[in-house]
Amino acid sequence: MKAGESAVNPKSTLTPGLYLVATPIGNLEDITLRAVRVLKEADQIACEDTRQTQKLLNHYGISSRTVSYHEHNERTRAPELVLDLEGGDRIALVTDAGMPGISDPGFRLISLAIRHHIQVVPIP
Amino acid sequence: MKAGESAVNPKSTLTPGLYLVATPIGNLEDITLRAVRVLKEADQIACEDTRQTQKLLNHYGISSRTVSYHEHNERTRAPELVLDLEGGDRIALVTDAGMPGISDPGFRLISLAIRHHIQVVPIP
Repeated sequence: MKAGESAVNPKSTLTPGLYLVATPIGNLEDITLRAVRVLKEADQIACEDTRQTQKLLNHYGISSRTVSYHEHNERTRAPELVLDLEGGDRIALVTDAGMPGISDPGFRLISLAIRHHIQVVPIP
Repeated sequence: MKAGESAVNPKSTLTPGLYLVATPIGNLEDITLRAVRVLKEADQIACEDTRQTQKLLNHYGISSRTVSYHEHNERTRAPELVLDLEGGDRIALVTDAGMPGISDPGFRLISLAIRHHIQVVPIP
């Protein structure tokens, strides 16, 4: 699928927007119930490293689609993701570990989303 | 039950010790899977306010025994809890919200436990 053609998950109870989801920094059990639910219900999960995040998703039986979003593609990928957000997607942003937006390329996507009046929701 | 006579939960997989368990500060879903498991498997949950904590425990179907531990009983309750810990209890310490040990009476119990060589485990 290309940007703007994303299939929205009809079963999701999430309102459209960008969700900044904290992930475990060591123990896989150190993730909140809300974070697991948001990852399950997201239309896309934007990952720093999709292979790293896939380990977490497999552990919790989460089959949401992952896309890469990292320092080498942020300039092109951020506007693509914002187009999808404007189309009604619920996108979860995660990093390899911890809270996205601190010392990672999340800044570009988050600020672009805010400039386009997309709802941004931090999930601890 | 008096201090030193606590019934240890035979099904618990936790090693004996004092667990500092972070609880939600607003959204009941903002609790980690590890925190829920530790609360379930604890022999006792020492609470700042048992009624406040009971709301969380009811929400997650947790039936572990609660005991009060707050600024008005910490001087007598802390040594009682340490006796139970020395007897092999797994005790979870919680506050009304957030991480125990920051601006609350947890300090006295935690330092007493450490002086008695009890294992102290923070659970985010």
